Amino acid sequence: MPRHKGDHDARRREVSGAVRRVLAVHGFGGLTLRAVAAEMGATTGLLTHYFPSKRDLVAYALEVLDEQRTSRPRPAPDTGEGLAGVRAMLADILPTTAESVASNRVWVSSWDAALGDPELAAGHAARYRRSRERLQRHVEAAQERGEVAEGDAGEVAAALQSFVLGLIVQVLLEVDAFPPERQLRLLDDYLASLRP
Amino acid sequence: MPRHKGDHDARRREVSGAVRRVLAVHGFGGLTLRAVAAEMGATTGLLTHYFPSKRDLVAYALEVLDEQRTSRPRPAPDTGEGLAGVRAMLADILPTTAESVASNRVWVSSWDAALGDPELAAGHAARYRRSRERLQRHVEAAQERGEVAEGDAGEVAAALQSFVLGLIVQVLLEVDAFPPERQLRLLDDYLASLRP
Repeated sequence: MPRHKGDHDARRREVSGAVRRVLAVHGFGGLTLRAVAAEMGATTGLLTHYFPSKRDLVAYALEVLDEQRTSRPRPAPDTGEGLAGVRAMLADILPTTAESVASNRVWVSSWDAALGDPELAAGHAARYRRSRERLQRHVEAAQERGEVAEGDAGEVAAALQSFVLGLIVQVLLEVDAFPPERQLRLLDDYLASLRP
Repeated sequence: MPRHKGDHDARRREVSGAVRRVLAVHGFGGLTLRAVAAEMGATTGLLTHYFPSKRDLVAYALEVLDEQRTSRPRPAPDTGEGLAGVRAMLADILPTTAESVASNRVWVSSWDAALGDPELAAGHAARYRRSRERLQRHVEAAQERGEVAEGDAGEVAAALQSFVLGLIVQVLLEVDAFPPERQLRLLDDYLASLRP
Protein backbone atom coordinates (compact mmCIF):
# COMPACT_ATOMS: atom_id res chain seq x y z
CA MET A 1 0.00 0.00 0.00
CA PRO A 2 2.60 2.63 0.96
CA ARG A 3 4.43 1.69 -2.21
CA HIS A 4 1.40 2.54 -4.28
CA LYS A 5 1.03 5.87 -2.51
CA GLY A 6 4.70 6.61 -3.22
CA ASP A 7 4.25 5.69 -6.89
CA HIS A 8 1.24 7.93 -7.13
CA ASP A 9 3.06 10.92 -5.60
CA ALA A 10 6.11 10.36 -7.79
CA ARG A 11 3.93 10.24 -10.90
CA ARG A 12 2.08 13.34 -9.79
CA ARG A 13 5.38 15.21 -9.38
CA GLU A 14 6.46 13.96 -12.79
CA VAL A 15 3.24 15.24 -14.38
CA SER A 16 3.52 18.63 -12.58
CA GLY A 17 7.08 19.03 -13.82
CA ALA A 18 6.07 18.27 -17.39
CA VAL A 19 3.09 20.67 -17.21
CA ARG A 20 5.33 23.45 -15.86
CA ARG A 21 7.89 22.96 -18.61
CA VAL A 22 5.26 22.92 -21.36
CA LEU A 23 3.66 26.11 -19.95
CA ALA A 24 7.02 27.86 -19.63
CA VAL A 25 7.89 27.18 -23.26
CA HIS A 26 4.52 27.26 -25.03
CA GLY A 27 2.05 28.95 -22.64
CA PHE A 28 -1.51 27.74 -22.23
CA GLY A 29 -2.02 27.81 -25.97
CA GLY A 30 0.49 24.98 -26.29
CA LEU A 31 -0.78 22.95 -23.34
CA THR A 32 -2.09 19.74 -24.86
CA LEU A 33 -2.20 16.17 -23.60
CA ARG A 34 0.15 15.29 -26.43
CA ALA A 35 2.73 17.95 -25.47
CA VAL A 36 2.71 16.92 -21.81
CA ALA A 37 2.97 13.24 -22.74
CA ALA A 38 5.91 13.99 -25.06
CA GLU A 39 7.61 15.98 -22.30
CA MET A 40 7.26 12.96 -20.00
CA GLY A 41 8.26 10.47 -22.65
CA ALA A 42 4.87 8.82 -22.05
CA THR A 43 1.96 7.98 -24.32
CA THR A 44 -1.09 10.22 -24.69
CA GLY A 45 -3.10 7.19 -23.57
CA LEU A 46 -1.36 7.16 -20.19
CA LEU A 47 -2.06 10.87 -19.77
CA THR A 48 -5.78 10.53 -20.53
CA HIS A 49 -5.85 8.12 -17.59
CA TYR A 50 -5.02 11.13 -15.36
CA PHE A 51 -6.80 13.80 -17.40
CA PRO A 52 -9.84 12.49 -19.25
CA SER A 53 -10.18 15.85 -21.04
CA LYS A 54 -8.22 18.93 -21.99
CA ARG A 55 -10.28 20.77 -19.40
CA ASP A 56 -8.99 18.55 -16.59
CA LEU A 57 -5.45 19.21 -17.74
CA VAL A 58 -6.02 22.99 -17.78
CA ALA A 59 -7.64 22.91 -14.31
CA TYR A 60 -4.66 20.94 -13.03
CA ALA A 61 -2.20 23.36 -14.65
CA LEU A 62 -3.89 26.32 -12.93
CA GLU A 63 -3.46 24.52 -9.60
CA VAL A 64 0.19 23.79 -10.35
CA LEU A 65 0.76 27.46 -11.19
CA ASP A 66 -0.92 28.62 -8.03
CA GLU A 67 1.21 26.24 -5.95
CA GLN A 68 4.35 27.39 -7.72
CA ARG A 69 3.49 31.03 -7.07
CA THR A 70 2.63 30.66 -3.38
CA SER A 71 5.61 28.39 -2.62
CA ARG A 72 8.11 30.66 -4.38
CA PRO A 73 10.74 32.01 -1.97
CA ARG A 74 10.07 35.64 -1.06
CA PRO A 75 12.65 38.35 -0.30
CA ALA A 76 11.62 38.23 3.35
CA PRO A 77 8.93 36.39 5.31
CA ASP A 78 7.58 39.74 6.47
CA THR A 79 6.99 41.99 3.48
CA GLY A 80 6.86 45.17 5.53
CA GLU A 81 4.00 46.93 7.27
CA GLY A 82 1.40 49.43 6.14
CA LEU A 83 2.09 51.13 2.82
CA ALA A 84 5.48 49.38 2.63
CA GLY A 85 3.59 46.07 2.80
CA VAL A 86 1.31 47.14 -0.05
CA ARG A 87 4.33 48.14 -2.11
CA ALA A 88 6.25 44.93 -1.37
CA MET A 89 3.30 42.76 -2.33
CA LEU A 90 2.74 44.56 -5.63
CA ALA A 91 6.39 45.07 -6.57
CA ASP A 92 6.85 41.34 -6.06
CA ILE A 93 4.23 40.58 -8.73
CA LEU A 94 5.50 43.00 -11.39
CA PRO A 95 7.54 41.54 -14.28
CA THR A 96 10.82 43.20 -13.27
CA THR A 97 13.02 40.13 -13.86
CA ALA A 98 13.31 37.65 -16.73
CA GLU A 99 11.91 34.93 -14.46
CA SER A 100 8.96 37.06 -13.47
CA VAL A 101 8.30 38.02 -17.12
CA ALA A 102 8.11 34.30 -17.90
CA SER A 103 5.77 33.44 -15.04
CA ASN A 104 3.54 36.44 -15.72
CA ARG A 105 3.25 35.36 -19.34
CA VAL A 106 1.88 32.06 -18.21
CA TRP A 107 -0.65 33.82 -15.95
CA VAL A 108 -1.86 36.16 -18.70
CA SER A 109 -2.10 33.16 -20.97
CA SER A 110 -4.19 31.36 -18.33
CA TRP A 111 -6.88 34.07 -18.42
CA ASP A 112 -7.81 33.01 -21.93
CA ALA A 113 -8.07 29.38 -20.86
CA ALA A 114 -10.11 30.31 -17.77
CA LEU A 115 -12.52 32.66 -19.56
CA GLY A 116 -13.61 29.89 -21.90
CA ASP A 117 -14.86 27.73 -19.03
CA PRO A 118 -17.20 28.90 -16.20
CA GLU A 119 -15.69 26.51 -13.64
CA LEU A 120 -12.12 27.48 -14.41
CA ALA A 121 -13.13 31.15 -14.37
CA ALA A 122 -14.66 30.63 -10.91
CA GLY A 123 -11.40 29.15 -9.63
CA HIS A 124 -9.43 32.03 -11.07
CA ALA A 125 -11.91 34.58 -9.69
CA ALA A 126 -11.45 33.06 -6.22
CA ARG A 127 -7.66 33.38 -6.53
CA TYR A 128 -7.89 37.07 -7.46
CA ARG A 129 -10.46 37.66 -4.70
CA ARG A 130 -8.06 36.19 -2.13
CA SER A 131 -5.32 38.38 -3.49
CA ARG A 132 -7.53 41.50 -3.20
CA GLU A 133 -8.38 40.53 0.39
CA ARG A 134 -4.70 40.22 1.29
CA LEU A 135 -4.08 43.59 -0.30
CA GLN A 136 -7.05 45.04 1.56
CA ARG A 137 -5.54 44.01 4.92
CA HIS A 138 -2.32 45.83 4.00
CA VAL A 139 -4.33 48.90 2.95
CA GLU A 140 -6.25 48.86 6.26
CA ALA A 141 -2.97 48.68 8.17
CA ALA A 142 -1.66 51.60 6.10
CA GLN A 143 -4.82 53.58 6.85
CA GLU A 144 -4.41 52.91 10.58
CA ARG A 145 -0.90 54.28 10.35
CA GLY A 146 -2.18 57.36 8.54
CA GLU A 147 -0.24 56.49 5.37
CA VAL A 148 -3.31 56.05 3.16
CA ALA A 149 -6.35 58.32 3.05
CA GLU A 150 -9.55 57.13 4.73
CA GLY A 151 -12.02 55.31 2.51
CA ASP A 152 -13.24 51.84 1.55
CA ALA A 153 -10.09 49.69 1.79
CA GLY A 154 -11.71 46.97 -0.34
CA GLU A 155 -12.18 49.41 -3.21
CA VAL A 156 -8.65 50.76 -2.84
CA ALA A 157 -7.41 47.16 -3.03
CA ALA A 158 -9.54 46.39 -6.12
CA ALA A 159 -8.19 49.51 -7.83
CA LEU A 160 -4.59 48.66 -6.92
CA GLN A 161 -4.97 45.14 -8.21
CA SER A 162 -6.50 46.46 -11.44
CA PHE A 163 -3.57 48.81 -11.87
CA VAL A 164 -0.98 46.08 -11.38
CA LEU A 165 -2.67 43.49 -13.60
CA GLY A 166 -3.03 45.99 -16.44
CA LEU A 167 0.53 47.19 -16.01
CA ILE A 168 1.69 43.57 -16.32
CA VAL A 169 -0.19 43.21 -19.61
CA GLN A 170 1.40 46.34 -21.05
CA VAL A 171 4.87 45.35 -19.88
CA LEU A 172 4.61 41.88 -21.40
CA LEU A 173 3.50 43.26 -24.77
CA GLU A 174 6.31 45.82 -24.82
CA VAL A 175 9.05 44.82 -22.38
CA ASP A 176 11.58 47.35 -23.71
CA ALA A 177 9.22 50.29 -23.14
CA PHE A 178 8.70 49.32 -19.50
CA PRO A 179 12.05 48.67 -17.82
CA PRO A 180 11.87 47.75 -14.11
CA GLU A 181 12.60 51.35 -13.00
CA ARG A 182 9.61 52.61 -14.98
CA GLN A 183 7.33 49.90 -13.58
CA LEU A 184 8.35 50.75 -10.02
CA ARG A 185 8.06 54.49 -10.65
CA LEU A 186 4.52 54.02 -11.97
CA LEU A 187 3.71 51.93 -8.89
CA ASP A 188 5.22 54.53 -6.54
CA ASP A 189 3.34 57.38 -8.24
CA TYR A 190 0.13 55.43 -7.80
CA LEU A 191 0.87 54.71 -4.14
CA ALA A 192 1.75 58.37 -3.57
CA SER A 193 -1.72 59.33 -4.84
CA LEU A 194 -3.26 57.26 -2.01
CA ARG A 195 -1.65 59.34 0.75
CA PRO A 196 -3.97 61.50 2.83
CA MET B 1 -10.45 42.77 -63.86
CA PRO B 2 -12.97 44.76 -61.77
CA ARG B 3 -14.93 41.54 -61.40
CA HIS B 4 -11.93 39.81 -59.83
CA LYS B 5 -11.42 42.71 -57.47
CA GLY B 6 -15.07 42.45 -56.44
CA ASP B 7 -14.75 38.71 -55.91
CA HIS B 8 -11.70 39.24 -53.78
CA ASP B 9 -13.41 41.86 -51.61
CA ALA B 10 -16.51 39.74 -51.22
CA ARG B 11 -14.44 36.75 -50.18
CA ARG B 12 -12.49 38.89 -47.75
CA ARG B 13 -15.72 40.11 -46.16
CA GLU B 14 -16.92 36.52 -45.96
CA VAL B 15 -13.71 35.46 -44.22
CA SER B 16 -13.86 38.43 -41.79
CA GLY B 17 -17.42 37.57 -40.88
CA ALA B 18 -16.52 33.94 -40.20
CA VAL B 19 -13.48 34.94 -38.12
CA ARG B 20 -15.61 37.33 -36.04
CA ARG B 21 -18.25 34.69 -35.39
CA VAL B 22 -15.68 32.06 -34.39
CA LEU B 23 -13.96 34.53 -32.04
CA ALA B 24 -17.25 35.63 -30.49
CA VAL B 25 -18.24 32.05 -29.69
CA HIS B 26 -14.90 30.32 -28.99
CA GLY B 27 -12.34 33.09 -28.42
CA PHE B 28 -8.80 32.89 -29.73
CA GLY B 29 -8.40 29.42 -28.21
CA GLY B 30 -10.96 28.12 -30.68
CA LEU B 31 -9.70 30.03 -33.71
CA THR B 32 -8.51 27.34 -36.11
CA LEU B 33 -8.48 27.12 -39.88
CA ARG B 34 -10.92 24.25 -39.56
CA ALA B 35 -13.38 26.26 -37.43
CA VAL B 36 -13.32 29.23 -39.81
CA ALA B 37 -13.71 26.94 -42.82
CA ALA B 38 -16.67 25.19 -41.19
CA GLU B 39 -18.25 28.57 -40.39
CA MET B 40 -17.93 29.51 -44.09
CA GLY B 41 -19.05 26.13 -45.34
CA ALA B 42 -15.70 25.93 -47.15
CA THR B 43 -12.86 23.43 -47.09
CA THR B 44 -9.77 23.85 -44.92
CA GLY B 45 -7.82 23.64 -48.18
CA LEU B 46 -9.47 26.78 -49.50
CA LEU B 47 -8.66 28.61 -46.25
CA THR B 48 -4.97 27.64 -46.35
CA HIS B 49 -4.92 29.42 -49.70
CA TYR B 50 -5.60 32.66 -47.76
CA PHE B 51 -3.80 31.76 -44.55
CA PRO B 52 -0.84 29.45 -45.09
CA SER B 53 -0.45 29.10 -41.32
CA LYS B 54 -2.37 29.45 -38.07
CA ARG B 55 -0.18 32.49 -37.39
CA ASP B 56 -1.46 34.26 -40.51
CA LEU B 57 -5.01 33.59 -39.39
CA VAL B 58 -4.33 35.00 -35.92
CA ALA B 59 -2.63 38.10 -37.36
CA TYR B 60 -5.64 38.63 -39.61
CA ALA B 61 -8.05 38.15 -36.70
CA LEU B 62 -6.24 40.83 -34.68
CA GLU B 63 -6.66 43.23 -37.61
CA VAL B 64 -10.34 42.37 -37.94
CA LEU B 65 -10.82 43.03 -34.22
CA ASP B 66 -9.04 46.34 -34.39
CA GLU B 67 -11.18 47.40 -37.35
CA GLN B 68 -14.32 46.30 -35.54
CA ARG B 69 -13.32 48.29 -32.45
CA THR B 70 -12.42 51.51 -34.22
CA SER B 71 -15.45 51.45 -36.53
CA ARG B 72 -17.91 50.80 -33.71
CA PRO B 73 -20.41 53.65 -33.35
CA ARG B 74 -19.58 55.88 -30.37
CA PRO B 75 -22.07 57.70 -28.13
CA ALA B 76 -20.96 61.00 -29.68
CA PRO B 77 -18.30 62.00 -32.20
CA ASP B 78 -16.81 64.33 -29.60
CA THR B 79 -16.24 62.40 -26.37
CA GLY B 80 -15.94 65.52 -24.24
CA GLU B 81 -12.99 67.69 -23.36
CA GLY B 82 -10.32 67.54 -20.70
CA LEU B 83 -11.04 65.17 -17.82
CA ALA B 84 -14.48 64.43 -19.29
CA GLY B 85 -12.70 63.25 -22.44
CA VAL B 86 -10.46 60.95 -20.40
CA ARG B 87 -13.48 59.54 -18.61
CA ALA B 88 -15.49 59.05 -21.81
CA MET B 89 -12.64 57.22 -23.50
CA LEU B 90 -12.09 54.84 -20.57
CA ALA B 91 -15.75 54.32 -19.66
CA ASP B 92 -16.33 53.35 -23.28
CA ILE B 93 -13.78 50.51 -23.00
CA LEU B 94 -15.04 49.03 -19.72
CA PRO B 95 -17.20 45.88 -19.90
CA THR B 96 -20.39 47.56 -18.69
CA THR B 97 -22.72 45.92 -21.22
CA ALA B 98 -23.16 42.32 -22.38
CA GLU B 99 -21.81 43.31 -25.80
CA SER B 100 -18.76 44.94 -24.29
CA VAL B 101 -18.15 41.93 -22.01
CA ALA B 102 -18.11 39.75 -25.13
CA SER B 103 -15.74 41.98 -27.10
CA ASN B 104 -13.42 42.45 -24.12
CA ARG B 105 -13.26 38.66 -23.72
CA VAL B 106 -11.97 38.39 -27.23
CA TRP B 107 -9.34 41.06 -26.53
CA VAL B 108 -8.11 39.40 -23.34
CA SER B 109 -8.04 36.13 -25.22
CA SER B 110 -5.95 37.80 -27.96
CA TRP B 111 -3.15 38.67 -25.49
CA ASP B 112 -2.35 35.00 -25.11
CA ALA B 113 -2.19 34.56 -28.89
CA ALA B 114 -0.05 37.68 -29.28
CA LEU B 115 2.40 36.89 -26.48
CA GLY B 116 3.37 33.62 -28.13
CA ASP B 117 4.60 35.40 -31.27
CA PRO B 118 7.03 38.37 -31.33
CA GLU B 119 5.51 39.86 -34.49
CA LEU B 120 1.95 39.64 -33.22
CA ALA B 121 3.09 41.06 -29.88
CA ALA B 122 4.68 44.00 -31.74
CA GLY B 123 1.39 44.71 -33.53
CA HIS B 124 -0.50 44.58 -30.27
CA ALA B 125 2.09 46.75 -28.52
CA ALA B 126 1.67 49.37 -31.26
CA ARG B 127 -2.12 49.33 -30.77
CA TYR B 128 -1.78 49.91 -27.02
CA ARG B 129 0.86 52.57 -27.60
CA ARG B 130 -1.51 54.47 -29.90
CA SER B 131 -4.22 54.15 -27.29
CA ARG B 132 -1.88 55.55 -24.58
CA GLU B 133 -0.99 58.46 -26.89
CA ARG B 134 -4.66 59.27 -27.46
CA LEU B 135 -5.19 59.14 -23.70
CA GLN B 136 -2.14 61.34 -23.16
CA ARG B 137 -3.59 64.07 -25.38
CA HIS B 138 -6.76 64.04 -23.27
CA VAL B 139 -4.67 64.19 -20.08
CA GLU B 140 -2.69 67.15 -21.45
CA ALA B 141 -5.93 68.96 -22.28
CA ALA B 142 -7.18 68.23 -18.76
CA GLN B 143 -3.93 69.58 -17.30
CA GLU B 144 -4.28 72.77 -19.35
CA ARG B 145 -7.77 73.20 -17.92
CA GLY B 146 -6.40 72.69 -14.41
CA GLU B 147 -8.45 69.50 -13.92
CA VAL B 148 -5.45 67.18 -13.55
CA ALA B 149 -2.34 67.87 -11.48
CA GLU B 150 0.86 68.83 -13.31
CA GLY B 151 3.23 66.01 -14.18
CA ASP B 152 4.28 63.74 -17.04
CA ALA B 153 1.06 63.23 -19.02
CA GLY B 154 2.54 60.15 -20.74
CA GLU B 155 3.02 58.45 -17.40
CA VAL B 156 -0.44 59.44 -16.22
CA ALA B 157 -1.81 57.90 -19.43
CA ALA B 158 0.22 54.69 -18.99
CA ALA B 159 -1.06 54.37 -15.42
CA LEU B 160 -4.66 55.01 -16.47
CA GLN B 161 -4.45 52.43 -19.23
CA SER B 162 -2.95 49.92 -16.79
CA PHE B 163 -5.80 50.54 -14.39
CA VAL B 164 -8.47 50.01 -17.03
CA LEU B 165 -6.92 46.91 -18.61
CA GLY B 166 -6.53 45.26 -15.19
CA LEU B 167 -10.05 46.23 -14.18
CA ILE B 168 -11.33 44.59 -17.37
CA VAL B 169 -9.55 41.34 -16.46
CA GLN B 170 -11.07 41.29 -12.98
CA VAL B 171 -14.55 42.12 -14.27
CA LEU B 172 -14.43 39.36 -16.89
CA LEU B 173 -13.37 36.75 -14.34
CA GLU B 174 -16.09 37.79 -11.88
CA VAL B 175 -18.79 39.75 -13.69
CA ASP B 176 -21.25 39.59 -10.79
CA ALA B 177 -18.77 41.17 -8.37
CA PHE B 178 -18.20 44.13 -10.68
CA PRO B 179 -21.55 45.54 -11.85
CA PRO B 180 -21.32 48.60 -14.13
CA GLU B 181 -21.87 51.05 -11.22
CA ARG B 182 -18.88 49.61 -9.37
CA GLN B 183 -16.68 49.77 -12.48
CA LEU B 184 -17.60 53.42 -13.04
CA ARG B 185 -17.18 54.28 -9.36
CA LEU B 186 -13.69 52.74 -9.37
CA LEU B 187 -12.88 54.75 -12.50
CA ASP B 188 -14.25 57.97 -10.99
CA ASP B 189 -12.32 57.45 -7.75
CA TYR B 190 -9.17 56.98 -9.78
CA LEU B 191 -9.85 60.11 -11.84
CA ALA B 192 -10.57 62.09 -8.68
CA SER B 193 -7.11 61.17 -7.39
CA LEU B 194 -5.57 62.90 -10.43
CA ARG B 195 -7.05 66.30 -9.54
CA PRO B 196 -4.60 69.00 -8.40
